[in-house]
Amino acid sequence: MKNQLIIFDTTLRDGEQSPGASLSVSEKVEIARQLEKLNVDVIEAGFPVSSPEQFEAVQRISNEVGVTVAALARAKEIDIKSAYDAIKNGEKKRIHTFSSTSDYHILGKFSDDRYGKTLTEKRKTIIKMSYDMVKYAKSLVDDVEFSAEDAGRTDLNYLVEVIEAAIEAGATTINIPDTTGYTLPKEFGQKIAYLKSKVRNIEKAIISVHCHNDLGLAVANSIAGIENGARQVECTINGIGERAGNASLEEIVMALKVRKDIFEIESKIETKEIMNTSKLVSGYTGIIVQPNKAIVGENAFAHESGIHQDGMLKSRETYEIMTPETVGAQSTKIVLGRHSGRHGLKARLDELGYSVASEELNNIYKSFTKLADKKKEVYDDDLRILMGDSKNRNEAIYDLKYMHVFGGSSTIPTATVRIKADGKIVEDSATGDGPVDALFNAIDRALEKKPTVESYRVRSVTAGRAALGEVAVRIRKDGRSYTGIGVSTDIIEASAKAYIQAINKKERNERSKNKIQNEEELKGEI
Amino acid sequence: MKNQLIIFDTTLRDGEQSPGASLSVSEKVEIARQLEKLNVDVIEAGFPVSSPEQFEAVQRISNEVGVTVAALARAKEIDIKSAYDAIKNGEKKRIHTFSSTSDYHILGKFSDDRYGKTLTEKRKTIIKMSYDMVKYAKSLVDDVEFSAEDAGRTDLNYLVEVIEAAIEAGATTINIPDTTGYTLPKEFGQKIAYLKSKVRNIEKAIISVHCHNDLGLAVANSIAGIENGARQVECTINGIGERAGNASLEEIVMALKVRKDIFEIESKIETKEIMNTSKLVSGYTGIIVQPNKAIVGENAFAHESGIHQDGMLKSRETYEIMTPETVGAQSTKIVLGRHSGRHGLKARLDELGYSVASEELNNIYKSFTKLADKKKEVYDDDLRILMGDSKNRNEAIYDLKYMHVFGGSSTIPTATVRIKADGKIVEDSATGDGPVDALFNAIDRALEKKPTVESYRVRSVTAGRAALGEVAVRIRKDGRSYTGIGVSTDIIEASAKAYIQAINKKERNERSKNKIQNEEELKGEI
Repeated sequence: MKNQLIIFDTTLRDGEQSPGASLSVSEKVEIARQLEKLNVDVIEAGFPVSSPEQFEAVQRISNEVGVTVAALARAKEIDIKSAYDAIKNGEKKRIHTFSSTSDYHILGKFSDDRYGKTLTEKRKTIIKMSYDMVKYAKSLVDDVEFSAEDAGRTDLNYLVEVIEAAIEAGATTINIPDTTGYTLPKEFGQKIAYLKSKVRNIEKAIISVHCHNDLGLAVANSIAGIENGARQVECTINGIGERAGNASLEEIVMALKVRKDIFEIESKIETKEIMNTSKLVSGYTGIIVQPNKAIVGENAFAHESGIHQDGMLKSRETYEIMTPETVGAQSTKIVLGRHSGRHGLKARLDELGYSVASEELNNIYKSFTKLADKKKEVYDDDLRILMGDSKNRNEAIYDLKYMHVFGGSSTIPTATVRIKADGKIVEDSATGDGPVDALFNAIDRALEKKPTVESYRVRSVTAGRAALGEVAVRIRKDGRSYTGIGVSTDIIEASAKAYIQAINKKERNERSKNKIQNEEELKGEI
Repeated sequence: MKNQLIIFDTTLRDGEQSPGASLSVSEKVEIARQLEKLNVDVIEAGFPVSSPEQFEAVQRISNEVGVTVAALARAKEIDIKSAYDAIKNGEKKRIHTFSSTSDYHILGKFSDDRYGKTLTEKRKTIIKMSYDMVKYAKSLVDDVEFSAEDAGRTDLNYLVEVIEAAIEAGATTINIPDTTGYTLPKEFGQKIAYLKSKVRNIEKAIISVHCHNDLGLAVANSIAGIENGARQVECTINGIGERAGNASLEEIVMALKVRKDIFEIESKIETKEIMNTSKLVSGYTGIIVQPNKAIVGENAFAHESGIHQDGMLKSRETYEIMTPETVGAQSTKIVLGRHSGRHGLKARLDELGYSVASEELNNIYKSFTKLADKKKEVYDDDLRILMGDSKNRNEAIYDLKYMHVFGGSSTIPTATVRIKADGKIVEDSATGDGPVDALFNAIDRALEKKPTVESYRVRSVTAGRAALGEVAVRIRKDGRSYTGIGVSTDIIEASAKAYIQAINKKERNERSKNKIQNEEELKGEI
């Protein structure tokens, strides 16, 4: 039997740190349930100390899913306490703590004299902090992971010392992040091999890798790590994350599977759930997947060229190293129509990874029949966006009640809206450069707000004319971005919903912050 | 001094084979000019035998740019003759011919008995065909490249034989494609090292690599090739290409540059032109770049998390291994306004990679002043999409003259259009599920056509409310996809333009095919 690779998914922590990706608590829980179906080994659910919403998300996920849930914490008592409080009632729990170890990071983030006056002194302080905090975490849970931030650019001998201290203090997983995505595969592999041979008691811990994609090498670096002794990889769905993102879960998993002739290790991922998970994450975060993305891009299994198509007909293996079915990307099929019942709808939603409470099902079924009347054929992707839409309405502070627009080549585009805002009805109209601009202006007037629009996107997810359009609007306020998603067969209406949802997210965030006066707003940083 | 890596850009050949990416001749010429500015060494401009439009594009690029232009050809006389005819008047010319060498491909594509009855016989036939056709190409030009298709899955000893034959016949570049994106970096590197040590007279040719991204490893494989003796890489802008695409030019080039401490080889790419090139290609092909794409994604240089932002302020190097300026991705700046003149506009367009003939400038200036009236501040990205739009109007068979729409939550969405079609004016109206659907229905009625809509996308490129919206519509007819792009501050109008442009592309393609009765429609296949 082959060794088993531990798949540590950090979509909900590092992935959520992508600009504009902020997810609501219930969206995170939904994604966590799908990750459980995908059969990942560890879900990093968030960074509890950083905000009450992060805390709540980690807590709910820890209570509701059956896989190991990791909570992130700096090497500080307050962080570790908060991480523990969030996961303490969960079945399988891990505290994941980290320290900066590269000189860049030590000098950049520990410049204060209280950490030591010289680099040597600061380095010593960091070893002590790491040792003490791993020990503290270990007093709370058995399963403790330690990460050496920016290990990719850390002096190797110092790295050995830090890791030895963490293992001595009880860490059972040692994570080696290439935080800035700086290393090359051969180099990163050698680093892992070196640590495996040099660190005292390394056999007491599992070596993990966490690679960023700044040079497009995150997956290759992760694989080089595995080839040299790593037994855990940290990765995200669709490779989302800070900047150019993290290693893609789906690419690592499929490389292992397609090349099982070479690897002596395998994951236990249910690869047929890859596409469902990819679409769920892309839908909720608003981060689109490019058509030429490996494994989950819409062209990943398309064969366009004349010769290729000819080759494909003659023998499927000519150009295909894996089938679309393996990753759950079979061609779209009709699943439901206007005669489908509540039961059929619920069953299909379950298969797609949505767990729907019975009171919620009524509303969703209502939207579904409305859509089925228009469309005749309702596809999986239609259901996916219906679900995204329903999720948003449930959490709304502002809710669109009515709208109309008028526009054209020689008219002044005009829009009118009626919105339920904190229980009251407000309405207004405005003109603009186009119907969407007019609409946003009308909403601004009605709500007396004027956020900055950072980006605006529409995609039709299903094929055909009556397809649902999904609009993503990203707004920015006080240095933070919020993405709203809106869905309708009418993209103008979808635009209004998306814009209002983004404002809803911003509002919720500001209100929850006001509650606790936490202005710092930390996120992770590995 | 370091060795120089030859950057062989195949955006216009392999990249254009991405589903829906089809480019017009003038778009290809525009991209080729920008590639020249980027300072690539070789531009693969197309596959001349496959269609008159491909032939024309290769011919024009070969005549108009100063870098080496490669033309693709199967190992067939008719292909090589056509490739030669297309480039013969160019300054620096290369014929790139290829044969299938893996058993999968040989059995899949050469199943006919005339190539031999057994695999051994077929393999011999392919060696002979390769030898003869390289020899023929060599009689026409000095610079001949030979590719062994699916080399990644080809028996190594047979591969050695094929390559020896090609070198003996005069090939000066030997390309090793991993056609199906199957290999792992270590394995691919070892393959290159093996060939370098085993192939007789290998020093007479430059070894090239051409990697596909099916497992997300194209860049890593290319780098492994370089580490083991390859001196040319074939790659595309934004990593576009068949299925999950090719190795990204920008990722390979920046890995070499950021890690110049390790590499003994360098490229002569003008990295500051990377972002311009990326946007030009994405705009013309309609293939979006995901936000977390390395180097050119909109988040590639964004630092979202609290700790990260804090670290960034303390020391830029904490999280940045390269600056956005190195790749030309500095923050958007205001370049022009309503008082800018024709001269200022032309100068800025030149900097962005557009070469505008003086008769064309009048029209563009008219659109520019119209936009500047609305927007006050005109950004580089606004100009980019203005240019895309102007290009399309010049090549239109159908041209939108007038439109208006009406829609809202409790109205029946209705649209009316007037279109100039082959010189005549047609107009009609229709209803739909939303204003865009109504619009497409009205256009269908007016033009008496009903193409299948495969996908529909909108993005706002610049920030702010009066931003231009760019709509991409992909339609499908007879097994081929066509993408139309439309631009306006009004996304409904942009949708109409995009839809009509897609129909224009389809129409042009069908008319040029009818001219020559070529139903086969070949594309490349490496």
